Formats: sequence, C-alpha cells, structure tokens
Amino acid sequence: MSDPSAPKTSPGNFFEDFRLGQQIHHATPRTVGSGDAALYQGLFGPRFAVQSSDVFAKGLGYARAPLDDLLVFHVVFGKTVPDISLNAVANLGYADCRFLKPVYPGATLNAVSEVTGLRENSNRKSGIVYVRSRGFDATGEPVLDYARWVMVRKRDEAAPAPPAKVPELPKAVEPAQLGAACPPIDGKAYDNVLAGSPYRFGDYHAGERIDHVDGITVEEAEHMIATRLYQNTARIHFNQFAESQGRFGRRLIYGGHAISLARALSFNGLANAFHVAAINGGRHVAPLFAGGTVFAWSEVLATAELPGRRDVGALRLRTVATKDRPCPDFPYKDGDEYDPAVILDLDYWVLMPR
Amino acid sequence: MSDPSAPKTSPGNFFEDFRLGQQIHHATPRTVGSGDAALYQGLFGPRFAVQSSDVFAKGLGYARAPLDDLLVFHVVFGKTVPDISLNAVANLGYADCRFLKPVYPGATLNAVSEVTGLRENSNRKSGIVYVRSRGFDATGEPVLDYARWVMVRKRDEAAPAPPAKVPELPKAVEPAQLGAACPPIDGKAYDNVLAGSPYRFGDYHAGERIDHVDGITVEEAEHMIATRLYQNTARIHFNQFAESQGRFGRRLIYGGHAISLARALSFNGLANAFHVAAINGGRHVAPLFAGGTVFAWSEVLATAELPGRRDVGALRLRTVATKDRPCPDFPYKDGDEYDPAVILDLDYWVLMPR
Amino acid sequence: MSDPSAPKTSPGNFFEDFRLGQQIHHATPRTVGSGDAALYQGLFGPRFAVQSSDVFAKGLGYARAPLDDLLVFHVVFGKTVPDISLNAVANLGYADCRFLKPVYPGATLNAVSEVTGLRENSNRKSGIVYVRSRGFDATGEPVLDYARWVMVRKRDEAAPAPPAKVPELPKAVEPAQLGAACPPIDGKAYDNVLAGSPYRFGDYHAGERIDHVDGITVEEAEHMIATRLYQNTARIHFNQFAESQGRFGRRLIYGGHAISLARALSFNGLANAFHVAAINGGRHVAPLFAGGTVFAWSEVLATAELPGRRDVGALRLRTVATKDRPCPDFPYKDGDEYDPAVILDLDYWVLMPR
Repeated sequence: MSDPSAPKTSPGNFFEDFRLGQQIHHATPRTVGSGDAALYQGLFGPRFAVQSSDVFAKGLGYARAPLDDLLVFHVVFGKTVPDISLNAVANLGYADCRFLKPVYPGATLNAVSEVTGLRENSNRKSGIVYVRSRGFDATGEPVLDYARWVMVRKRDEAAPAPPAKVPELPKAVEPAQLGAACPPIDGKAYDNVLAGSPYRFGDYHAGERIDHVDGITVEEAEHMIATRLYQNTARIHFNQFAESQGRFGRRLIYGGHAISLARALSFNGLANAFHVAAINGGRHVAPLFAGGTVFAWSEVLATAELPGRRDVGALRLRTVATKDRPCPDFPYKDGDEYDPAVILDLDYWVLMPR
Repeated sequence: MSDPSAPKTSPGNFFEDFRLGQQIHHATPRTVGSGDAALYQGLFGPRFAVQSSDVFAKGLGYARAPLDDLLVFHVVFGKTVPDISLNAVANLGYADCRFLKPVYPGATLNAVSEVTGLRENSNRKSGIVYVRSRGFDATGEPVLDYARWVMVRKRDEAAPAPPAKVPELPKAVEPAQLGAACPPIDGKAYDNVLAGSPYRFGDYHAGERIDHVDGITVEEAEHMIATRLYQNTARIHFNQFAESQGRFGRRLIYGGHAISLARALSFNGLANAFHVAAINGGRHVAPLFAGGTVFAWSEVLATAELPGRRDVGALRLRTVATKDRPCPDFPYKDGDEYDPAVILDLDYWVLMPR
Repeated sequence: MSDPSAPKTSPGNFFEDFRLGQQIHHATPRTVGSGDAALYQGLFGPRFAVQSSDVFAKGLGYARAPLDDLLVFHVVFGKTVPDISLNAVANLGYADCRFLKPVYPGATLNAVSEVTGLRENSNRKSGIVYVRSRGFDATGEPVLDYARWVMVRKRDEAAPAPPAKVPELPKAVEPAQLGAACPPIDGKAYDNVLAGSPYRFGDYHAGERIDHVDGITVEEAEHMIATRLYQNTARIHFNQFAESQGRFGRRLIYGGHAISLARALSFNGLANAFHVAAINGGRHVAPLFAGGTVFAWSEVLATAELPGRRDVGALRLRTVATKDRPCPDFPYKDGDEYDPAVILDLDYWVLMPR
C-alpha cells in the first residue's frame, strides 16, 4: 500500500496537490481533558464563570464546565496545519466559523477538511486554497465548522492549475445559526456577582466601545507551550535557528494566541459574554513576537436575539488587539490603513444571558 | 438593575468604596482539578508525599491526595484581588490564616470577604482596608479563612472617611485551632522512606535552624502562568509595557510565588511537614523579579501538640527566603534591618506525624 | 530511630555510602494523571495517536490512552536522583531499559534501586556506581526496569573502597523481551490516516535514515517546568545563581529533555512508532542550554519480529539529536569523534503495527 523507498517524512501539500472536493482526514485524534483546560487557564487567564466552575455551569444547564471555545478551535485548527498550511505563504482569512456542540473535558476531537475552492495566483508560484474544516467528537457529531483560505506555494511552477473556483462565504454568521453549543440557560441561576458583572445582554448596544484596560506580555515559552498543546506544527513558531535567518529574525507567535489573549482580556467589560458562538472573520494585521504586550478593545457591532430563545442574546463584536499600546482611544484604522499597533481585527458573536 | 451608560469595565474599589461590615462576594468560582495540581507541580516542584500520591494519602486517611495547601490559598486569594487590591498601594500583611478542610481535585472554590476595619491615612490620599476573606467549597463549608490588610488609594482625596476601626488580630494561630484540614492520620501507615525523611515531629526542637540548601531561578513565563492559573489579576505581574515605566522598570512577581518556592525548597529538611495548617503572618520584605534565584532557610519557632490529637504535632516555623544568596549562615536581620537579600519572612504552622 | 542533632537536610549519597546489593527505596510516590500528560504535551508536542486519543487507544486494545513512555521514564528516573546522583560527577550511561506495563493516568509510581556494581576510580576521589532501578505502580508490578551507571564523588578520599564489581549489561535488549507494555493490538483498527502515516513495520528496513526535519528551540522555563514535574532535584538544572559560577556559566538542561524532544520530532517519519519498548543505551554527547534549537534524525539499526506476536514489529533505532544544526545530511561521527553539533546518541526499540 505504501512505497518503502519513498521518503517517510511528510513535506506537506503544495498547491497542485489539492483537488476541488477533496476530503482530508487529519491526524491526530486528541482527547482533550481537564489538564489541557488547566494549562489553557495558566497560559491565558480567562475568568468566565461557565468555563471556570463545574458548579456554575451545571446550575445553568451544562453537564459541567465546558472547555473554552477557543481551546476547541485551536485543537481542531492545529490538526489541519500539517495537511493544509505547512507550505502556506500566508493565512488569508477565515469565515463562517460556528461552534456546534459544547465540548467537555474527556472529549476526543478529530478534524476533516474539504477543499471548497482553488485559485492559482497570476505569478503561477502559488495559489489560494479554500477549505471547510470541521471538528468532530467521538460520537461523530460536529463540534466546530469553519471556512479558511490560505496562500500555498506550488512545488512546481509549471504544474497545471485547475479552473479557478472561489466559494461564497457569508460576511457574518446569521443569528439563527448561533447557539447550538449553548444548552438552554437558566437565567435565574446565572449569578451576576459570581460571574463578575451586572451587565447582561440588554445592557449593551450597537456602537458601544469598551477598552479592556489590561495588558499581558507574552513569553516565548508560553506561546510554544500553547501551540504544542494544540499539536500545531507550523514551523515558524518553534525554530529560532531557522527563523533567525527568516523574514522576521525571530519566532512568530501563532495568531490564535493573540485571539485567546484578547478574549481573556475582554472579560473586563464583557464578563457575561460566556460563550463564543461564532467567528465571522478575523485578520492578523501584524505579527506578534515574544516580549510584546497585548492590549484589546471591543466594539459592539450589533445585538441580536436568537430565534426561539429567550435565555440568551448575541452580541456581534469587533475586538481589536494591539501590541505595546493601551487602547483607551480605541486605535483601529486611519482611512484604510490600520493603526500600526493593531495586530488583530476579529469579528465574532458572543452569547450573553438576557 | 444596571446602568447601560456606565462604563462596563471595573475600575476596582477605592478606599471610600469600602464600608465596615461590608460583605463582598467575589467572582469567579473555580473548579480546581488534577490539571491545576500538575501545573503547580511543574511550576514549583514540591515533593511532599501526601500531595503527590493518592495511594500514600489514602493510606493515611485522606480520601485521596489533597491539593497543595498553597494552591488553595493562591486560588482563594486571587479571587479577592479585583475587589480588594486592584487599587492597592501596598499589601501590608496577613494574619490568622487557617486551613479548614482538605481540598481535593474537583472542588469548586468561591471566596467572600468582609471588611473588618478601615483607617484613613493622615495624608488623606489613601487608607488601610482590613478584610477577613474566606474560601468555600461547593458544599458551602469554609476551606480557608484569613485576615489581610492593604493600603488602598482614594479616588477622591476630599471624600469623607469613616471613623477609624482596626480589628484585633492574633500574633499567631493557637494550636487548638490547627488541624481542621488534616484528617486523623494513621502514623503507622506513614512511611518515612517514601516520604523522604526519618525526622518526625519529636525530632525537631524550638530554635533549630535548617538551611534548605537548594536554589531555584524564576522565569517570567513561570510566574505569569502561575498567577493566571489563580485568576489573580494584579496588573503589575503581567504588563511589561506599563511596568517598564513603573517603579521597578519591570514586572513584579506575585508574592505568593516566593512562598510556594520556599515551601517547595523546605522539603529538604522538612520532608514530613506534610501540611501547612496555618499562616500566622508574612512579610514580603523585598520584591522578586524574573532571573532571581530563590533560596530559603527555616527556624523552628515553637513546637506544639494539638489538643486531643496524638497523630500529628505542629511546628511553628519562620521560613526566610532570599534572592541570589544561599542561606548556610541563615541571613535574616541586622538589628531591625533585614539583610538586603531577604525577600520573604513567613511565620506559619506545619503539621508532622508524631 | 533518628538522631535529632543530625542535620536534617540530605547531602545525598557519596561513593562510600553505597554497598553492593543495597536496596534503595526512593521517595516520593507520585500519582501521574491526565494533568501531567497535558503538561507533557505542551512541553514537547508529541503527536502519536495512541498517547493522544483515548478512543484510538481503546480501539487497539488499550484501556485508554497510556501515558507517554518517556514521561514514565522521567518520573521514575527523577525519584532516583536524590539518592543516586545528587553527588554525581557524570552520568555515564544507561542500558537494558525495558517498559513492562502500560501506565495509565491515575497510576501511582514508586521506584527502587539496587546497587549492582561499584568500582573506585584510580584517583580515589570518586567511583562508579552501577544500579538497577525499577519503577512500580500501586499494584506492586514493575512498569520500568533499567540499568544506569554514574560517577559519584567520595566524601572522604581515604575511605576504603569495596572490591571492584562491574555488572554485565546487554548491548541491546533482545526482541523477545520487548512488548510487555503493549497489549495485543488490533491492526485493522489501527487507522493509518488518523495516525498520520501510511508506513508500517514492513515499510522500514535496516540502514534506512530519516531526517525529522523540524527544530524546536528550548526555553529555560520549559525545561525547568518539565524537570520539576518529574520531581528531579538535580541542582544544575534550576539554580542560575550557582551555575553562573559553574562549569558552563549557566543552567544545564536535563538530558531527558533532549530525549523527549527528539522523540516528538521523530513523529515526522516515524508516526506509527507508537511505543518506545526499550532503550538499549544512550549518550548525552554534549550539553544543551536554553536558546538552543534541537533537531534530530534516525537510522533504522535493525528490524525484528517479536516472538509469538503478529500484531507489531520492532525497529531498533539510533536517534541522533543536534543543536543548532539541521540534519538533512545525518551528522553523526567523524571517525571516533562526534560531530560537534551532536548532543544525543540514543539506541532504542520502538514498536510499529504490522
């Protein structure tokens, strides 16, 4: 079945290795447990009560404290790296990311990607690969579903390219699609004091901006421990010997690390936003390196009721993370140009009790 | 119930926000599990058999290996930070800290503080806030109880101050109050060899001094991971961007980190001191920064039998931690002045099998 | 039973403290759980499916995902350090290391060593101590068995030495002795895609060399967290204050850290080598320090069937780790001299599904 004379290391896939409609089953299945949750806690410091306390979560209607949504995202995403983006030139974006089922410690996660679009670049050196990736638990039910597109090198510039196909992707997840990973919540059991804020869904309005105040400095050991925890093998995060000769002269921090830091910082102002229900899109505007201090602010882009649910409402947020720049004045863009301190521009939906 | 036009981030409490007798229920409840215990192990390296081995602990009479006493302390303490000490100028002290119940992995901890004293400073810019803080598990039973006082800034110097009230606090916890968190121990099941030392309660005497020999260097990643694990939000530990302009020019390490290091180091000489029963008082004499190497020595201040118990006895210890200075000559004070290498002066009770 | 006037800190054993045939029961028993596994995952990033997924492992015949073999090794090894090698001048080697039973999260590990050889050095300042160390779980069954020899200082040069005795040790573990820690595997349930490679036992041949491609840079926080997790107390890893005056001017990384990194890197090319069955011998050729980037390559020294088993076969591997040097050209020795970049030369057996 396999060629014993072939090199046994995987070089990753190049642009011409992908086929439209191809299904890629990713290695390695991973049981994610309370140890992973503890390490995630130590690395990012989130304080949302639902993910912190079995008792609090059970009181609301969860089986126990679920894993942090972003930990689930990072573990699923990590699985796709060896097959999708080992030869990526750039991570261009993701969209239509929906959390579909609460994931509890002990769940075993797998990931499968489908190639949904391919478009060679005009220079013929690379092309854009669009995938839809899904994470599943051991029951085979999906826990996460998202679209992503990356620019991937060609192995051979002369290789023929398939006809261009670019999938349509929504600008934002519809409110009706939110909440599958959130069981019906007993709002009376939701204790604002224990959760850390009196502000619920009805207290927020579109256009409101919140400075999350605090900053967290990142160390090399931290981002590498996190990224290995997710079994993400992107080389640029781990190998100082190679990167010292690379584009930045140093290890680049996994973009998801900034997302998790921004989410943890957002507790200060959004303490009752207990669940990330969807990610509409995200852009890693600038690289983050060890030694940088991450700050964040958020704008409420919209508020939405969930059809058929009176327990929770959704806030569509833009959370902007910066490095080495506090955010009391909400730095973002000057015209089309991002403020040079901005590293992350994330558009997502969170749920709050009503 | 809440004001939607108010800023939604918490500025923390200022001196004039506290009222005598006020009860403060702290966020965030937290289920502390074996993952937290593993991370605590990796960060400090304690070797006490009771906390390391389910089998050893069960043999003595515990349900299983309890969580490290100091991990419990740090988690409860961390909860109080956003409400009590976010605007603290200085942590002045703590006293009468008693461990009241063994805490096992899976316990969910809450914390409540009562304001027991208030005294404005003569400069009217700040005042001293005295609290009694208690940690509870999900049964509502207390697991930890301690007094603490901090100097807190006033928001408005002109704000009126309440009449001064300073609570009385014991210099040391009475032996009769020790041991609530230690079940009856089967001394014959306590295996000195596995525990790492032949020396039990009867082998120690007041006045005895022990150099703990080893030193441990602290890294930025380590103290930040630890402090986030406890959900302690004190900003000075995390934000190099702000601290580069601050008093020290760098991040200050959480004082509890030095306590945990000193406790771990104290295994060498006190291996059978398997339980911290109470903390009488502690002083963080000088700041600790990353790159510093922590050493420690202990003096037995007193030995005490526990009324009604023949299984264990108590040693009252002074453990002194230093930075970048080994302790074979027991550095402490020169007159009233601490040796410049001393960072921690901790007075506490430990239990040992008899 | 103990002398209250004796210093209560342990100075470790010196050469003249060991007796041929002596049995040393080591402190501290340790329950190793899923939290430890998560931290190991974060520190090294292994991707072998059997240790990553309860579901995958159960499908093959394991009770659940076992702990990483090297985590078991490090925990057992760590226990021996305070008694065997605290006064070691040099770790000379290990041999005949066999993994005897799958170890699952929740197991409590103990260690016992027997002194199997003693030979004073001609300078009379030190001698070589040979031990056979065994790790046991709470049932009393052995999980690990290995021979090790270290050069240990004498406390007193004039102390008499026993007659020299050097134990015979095999150059390699026999195939018939492999596999005790691997239950019968259902090869049809072993999913190559999830495991990350199509190459099974039959696809490898003696003499084949594999560059594992990737490199991982090590940070001080990482190796100290790992080594404390194992309760390994060797001082040279932790104390920058002392080591700044020492042989290297800095902390030395535990040799086992390089082994774990090399094993994790070896996934790329050896993804189905799901179990380390034995270690024939290993040499830490050069020291590793924080900031160094570890690379690795492997040579298949031999392939072997296991008597009576048709489910798995064994590869005898030499894995060579380097620092700050990629391995596409398989750096090893120039004559008798190791390439200056080589830090580890490890000879071991792994199992693969047939």
